[in-house]
Amino acid sequence: MSVTGPAGFRAAGVAAGIKAGGKRDLALVVNDGPQQAAAGVFTTNKVKAAPVLWSQQVLKEHKLRAVVLNSGCANACTGPEGFQDTHATAEKVAEVLGVGAIEVAVCSTGLIGERLPMDALLPGVDTANGALASGAQAGLDAATAVLTTDTKPKQAFGQHDAGWSIGGFAKGAGMLAPNLATMLSVLTTDAVISGDDLDDALRAATRVTFDRLDVDGGTSTNDTVLVLASGASGVEVSKEDFAELLTTVCTDLVRQLQDDAEGATKTIDITVRGAVSEADAVAIGRTIAEDNLVKTAIFGSDPNWGRIAMALGRVDAEIDVDRLEIATNGVTLYAAGTKARDRSEADLSGREVEIVVDLHLGEHAATILTTDLSHAYVEENSAYSS
Amino acid sequence: MSVTGPAGFRAAGVAAGIKAGGKRDLALVVNDGPQQAAAGVFTTNKVKAAPVLWSQQVLKEHKLRAVVLNSGCANACTGPEGFQDTHATAEKVAEVLGVGAIEVAVCSTGLIGERLPMDALLPGVDTANGALASGAQAGLDAATAVLTTDTKPKQAFGQHDAGWSIGGFAKGAGMLAPNLATMLSVLTTDAVISGDDLDDALRAATRVTFDRLDVDGGTSTNDTVLVLASGASGVEVSKEDFAELLTTVCTDLVRQLQDDAEGATKTIDITVRGAVSEADAVAIGRTIAEDNLVKTAIFGSDPNWGRIAMALGRVDAEIDVDRLEIATNGVTLYAAGTKARDRSEADLSGREVEIVVDLHLGEHAATILTTDLSHAYVEENSAYSS
Repeated sequence: MSVTGPAGFRAAGVAAGIKAGGKRDLALVVNDGPQQAAAGVFTTNKVKAAPVLWSQQVLKEHKLRAVVLNSGCANACTGPEGFQDTHATAEKVAEVLGVGAIEVAVCSTGLIGERLPMDALLPGVDTANGALASGAQAGLDAATAVLTTDTKPKQAFGQHDAGWSIGGFAKGAGMLAPNLATMLSVLTTDAVISGDDLDDALRAATRVTFDRLDVDGGTSTNDTVLVLASGASGVEVSKEDFAELLTTVCTDLVRQLQDDAEGATKTIDITVRGAVSEADAVAIGRTIAEDNLVKTAIFGSDPNWGRIAMALGRVDAEIDVDRLEIATNGVTLYAAGTKARDRSEADLSGREVEIVVDLHLGEHAATILTTDLSHAYVEENSAYSS
Repeated sequence: MSVTGPAGFRAAGVAAGIKAGGKRDLALVVNDGPQQAAAGVFTTNKVKAAPVLWSQQVLKEHKLRAVVLNSGCANACTGPEGFQDTHATAEKVAEVLGVGAIEVAVCSTGLIGERLPMDALLPGVDTANGALASGAQAGLDAATAVLTTDTKPKQAFGQHDAGWSIGGFAKGAGMLAPNLATMLSVLTTDAVISGDDLDDALRAATRVTFDRLDVDGGTSTNDTVLVLASGASGVEVSKEDFAELLTTVCTDLVRQLQDDAEGATKTIDITVRGAVSEADAVAIGRTIAEDNLVKTAIFGSDPNWGRIAMALGRVDAEIDVDRLEIATNGVTLYAAGTKARDRSEADLSGREVEIVVDLHLGEHAATILTTDLSHAYVEENSAYSS
């Protein structure tokens, strides 16, 4: 179950003809209320796709009636005409639902620099509207329609004892796909919560979930995470309780994104602890996660801790090489300024690899999730785009 | 010709048994004077190998009689014992040359975390001392003895009309080699120049040459560039004239490093111009150079400018997406906020690829040199290290 799990939501995922081959490529998620609180977080890239610019604008009121999403085209770097296409998409959804365009968010994913095929997309909105339903299949259809090179849909659902729930789907992570962009996620809840609280909870949850997945350092032009609250359960929730369950649901989605990252043969969890600040821990973890020499070593199942030491040494963070410890899969390979146990003792032959860096300097920690750099990654990302 | 090109220098490159298979692995470069001015620049990595810590120390006096270099072992992350090994190496060289250890710099390259085989290295110093010569062959032997996965030695030489010259060799670039570390370069000159001027000139030259090559973002634990001046030409030079020829020689070496980078099937020159500062131009160029999606696209000869736009948009630098222009191999693909000429018009099938980003915001520019991300890179860097 995903976005249709919580009460008050309908969804659809249809084939509008944006992608070749009759695949589902247009999703619609509608909040039937009684409330329509909403919040969103967006890419920090300075090059923002038209749908991001639009959705940031409409989210200022913290209210959404619907989200329309397409795969097959990112509508990024498309100028004023591209923005008009996004606007026209929102207007079309508003028209079929009988709401205002200002209540409709738009998300796109696909090749950067190409215009949306509006003659396919606009009739697709009618088809999607006709297919709207509240069952699990409708949620799955929507989760499927946003996929690009993902090999499977990613859905998550969490139920709170007090009688409310959160559901959601996601696709991609970072700039993963050949020629394609974007991590997109739509989350729904039937809890009663204000737009401001929803916004705070979303930022708290994404900061430690979506923001800690780093497959290739890319920050797409289209990254968007939206949360919509219907209030249909009638249960008022605190910001803290909501953020807690939201974090659990987002963690579930992020794990699925990590596992299905392009070309991944290993999932790598990098925990940095003993840091003087959380920012230091995150910066070190991200640099290790993005280091191609670390990533290729792990593709080769090689516990080459020298590359980990090299990577962390180039971060602008507080470290002391004589106190630093590096372990892979539970075996400490470097400690007290020199080699510890022999690398042959650390078995990295499985799919799951854990790197732990203990700086022994403070109380802060963070875990960054990444994957290896494999032949399949190079293959998928070097195929010709046109 | 390289380090033995300028008058006043002898060199040797011998097989000491540090590497397997009887390959040359120990180099010695001796400055016979009459002067012994010297300067060095070193890795900015916080995890510094023992020879870097030693050489930084001895360079404080801006005077060197000799440099000893080994391949096959980086002597990094080896604790106090590793530092003692470097010290003992310098002492041994000092003894055979009849100079002080404080006048001997040490460079190492190879696997991080392993101790130097001193029982092979120390007798190797005797062998190298016996082989010291001033001819071109001796310079080539030294340039060969420092190689790791480089496929060929890299040498350069420049002659000034006023009767003085600069020669040098280099190996590797960034963290290039499987399990290995380090870019090392030794430069020599027979010009008469003070240690302070030499230091200024070296920093000016490396800032726009070695510092602008970025193959994989790695900054090794061992990176070292040294310059030694013998004064044997008797010709006094200005700091500016010296820096100019030094920059030419370093550019030659850097081009060779780029061309021989691991797994490279393309050399990519990324020029960022119209920036509000040189720092912005360098930061944008480096981010594009390190972006795996850009690098894999170019491996596939794909002028995928959307990935270049994505990469530059995530840099903390001033950009205006509506003024930005992106061109590959002379064809403008993005301008005025949208797609320009079709990507099919840009032919990237050759080995040399040029990316030009014009920000149209200011007068500053920089060119970063990099290579593509190929199957061969993944292959070389995922082989098991032991």
